[in-house]
Amino acid sequence: MKIIVDAFGGDNAPLEILKGCQMAVEEYGVDILLTGSESIIRQTAQQQGISLSHMEIFDAPDVIATDAPPKSIMREKKDCSLAAGLKLLAEGKGDAFISAGNSGALVFGTNMIVKRIPGIKRIAFAPVMPKREGFFMLCDGGANVECRADMLVQFGIMGSAYLEKVMGVKNPRVGLANVGTEDHKGGTLQHETFALLQKSGLNFVGNVEARDIPGDGADVVVADGFTGNVILKLYEGVAMELFGMIKELFTKNLKTKLAASLVLNDMRALKKRVDYNEYGGAPIIGAAKPVFKAHGSAKAKTFKNAIRLTKAYVEGHVIEEISEAIAAFEQEHGGEEA
Amino acid sequence: MKIIVDAFGGDNAPLEILKGCQMAVEEYGVDILLTGSESIIRQTAQQQGISLSHMEIFDAPDVIATDAPPKSIMREKKDCSLAAGLKLLAEGKGDAFISAGNSGALVFGTNMIVKRIPGIKRIAFAPVMPKREGFFMLCDGGANVECRADMLVQFGIMGSAYLEKVMGVKNPRVGLANVGTEDHKGGTLQHETFALLQKSGLNFVGNVEARDIPGDGADVVVADGFTGNVILKLYEGVAMELFGMIKELFTKNLKTKLAASLVLNDMRALKKRVDYNEYGGAPIIGAAKPVFKAHGSAKAKTFKNAIRLTKAYVEGHVIEEISEAIAAFEQEHGGEEA
Repeated sequence: MKIIVDAFGGDNAPLEILKGCQMAVEEYGVDILLTGSESIIRQTAQQQGISLSHMEIFDAPDVIATDAPPKSIMREKKDCSLAAGLKLLAEGKGDAFISAGNSGALVFGTNMIVKRIPGIKRIAFAPVMPKREGFFMLCDGGANVECRADMLVQFGIMGSAYLEKVMGVKNPRVGLANVGTEDHKGGTLQHETFALLQKSGLNFVGNVEARDIPGDGADVVVADGFTGNVILKLYEGVAMELFGMIKELFTKNLKTKLAASLVLNDMRALKKRVDYNEYGGAPIIGAAKPVFKAHGSAKAKTFKNAIRLTKAYVEGHVIEEISEAIAAFEQEHGGEEA
Repeated sequence: MKIIVDAFGGDNAPLEILKGCQMAVEEYGVDILLTGSESIIRQTAQQQGISLSHMEIFDAPDVIATDAPPKSIMREKKDCSLAAGLKLLAEGKGDAFISAGNSGALVFGTNMIVKRIPGIKRIAFAPVMPKREGFFMLCDGGANVECRADMLVQFGIMGSAYLEKVMGVKNPRVGLANVGTEDHKGGTLQHETFALLQKSGLNFVGNVEARDIPGDGADVVVADGFTGNVILKLYEGVAMELFGMIKELFTKNLKTKLAASLVLNDMRALKKRVDYNEYGGAPIIGAAKPVFKAHGSAKAKTFKNAIRLTKAYVEGHVIEEISEAIAAFEQEHGGEEA
């Protein structure tokens, strides 16, 4: 299997990306096709003693910044390492593409270059996030600000296939993010989506109130991209502020400092457990070929894990699974009113 | 000033409500008009040694449950203590109404019985919530699942008036809940609302990303009721799960238990600080007369504080302030396209 890797995506590129790739080659036996400045990659590898065995390089010296407008991937940044990787994937030069770079550009570029699975209305950004025990997938986490119910039911189908095939969740429980658990809750979009999810054949568990998402509301939380992005970012914001307050508490006086010293490792482990940056990354789901977003802050080990998930994304035949599920749903319910 | 109080709203009614009322009479010099079963009120007061000085009772023996359908307030529950309070307020038998009961019924009943300030399109449920330092107001926190931009700009105007007059925030910063900080972020609703807020005369600070809300994004966070309710409930859910995990950590072994004993009081204080149930409650804003929702779990002291805020709601002439601001905005921009 050959994984195409954006060597210049994320905060720690290219060093940590290259280290992660080397680890993945050794542990998972994958081949890597790196995109980025060949001279910098070779120089970095040499200086840091990183083996480039089982790695090819596609020279693409330009880089797209994390905060660059997503659309620039098709214009002034059309030859950057991220765009190059998407093109190589579209041309069949590798089995999957992974980048820790600009999320918006990755979604936009995937849509334009790799394109969608036939029948899929929108690709989604689908982060795997921590909950009280384990994880859940948020679908869509922000790719599509405005959605229709027929898109949301596809998000449920796609998220369910991914969790089952890649993350090993049996019969994933699919829930609709809503303002209450009763069937009639929400607005028109939620009512229509609820009706479609009920006849989707998915393990639909109904509406999930936002309060229950961090506990164990569902394995796949379906939302329009606006709501999903609010969930994704508020999750991070609340956790960050709380940990900040706890840190303040622990440095308040001698007594609290002593307490801190006693639980330092446990607190670090907890922080890591709830840090979604440490989690499974996010497939750009619905794309015609596997595209995976690793976290921008990923260091070597996290990036290696992201490569493992990308490999599982290919081996799990998730694209085929989605394709069949969508075709079956369309055959049964296509053209019906929600 | 006479405050009408639903003596049978919330988890701790009527005992804690009556205790809170007694404290408010003593500390703030208010008069109270209680609604609820007169016999149970008198019996409870006598048994618990609570003075009913400066308190009248309007006998309304029926009670609406917290989870009853909001619309039942106009039908089978039209004579409950909550409905009675709203009617007494509408009839001018008191200056404001406060209940710790069914939020949905309070919003629905306020809209039907107390009615809106002329020119106000929708009343909003506007909880005051904790952030890293101090608080912010979320407007709308869930009264209106589907909104138009002209409603959202009114939420900003109303929230701003309340924070300034009741909470003492000078020139409150108004932000629009969105999926990013750049001006063009969000969907049609956000674009239209952004344009209206820009010319509203409010201290509009632009879009607030959900990640920044718990830090210090804005003093008033404007959102449609769906998004606002997701924010409100996810806030609670994430905090609850994190505190649950920390509790687990502290009870793990002897070392962590020792640490826990050292920071017990500090952790309790922190938990209280971020518990929005301990905060300022929520005005039902946009109503023609002051209606206030105290937290369902309010005990005597919290309820007393809620009465203090309700008194400030009256004395701050918030209704008049909103009325004038809305009229000024309509005169300047009414009929314009967003």
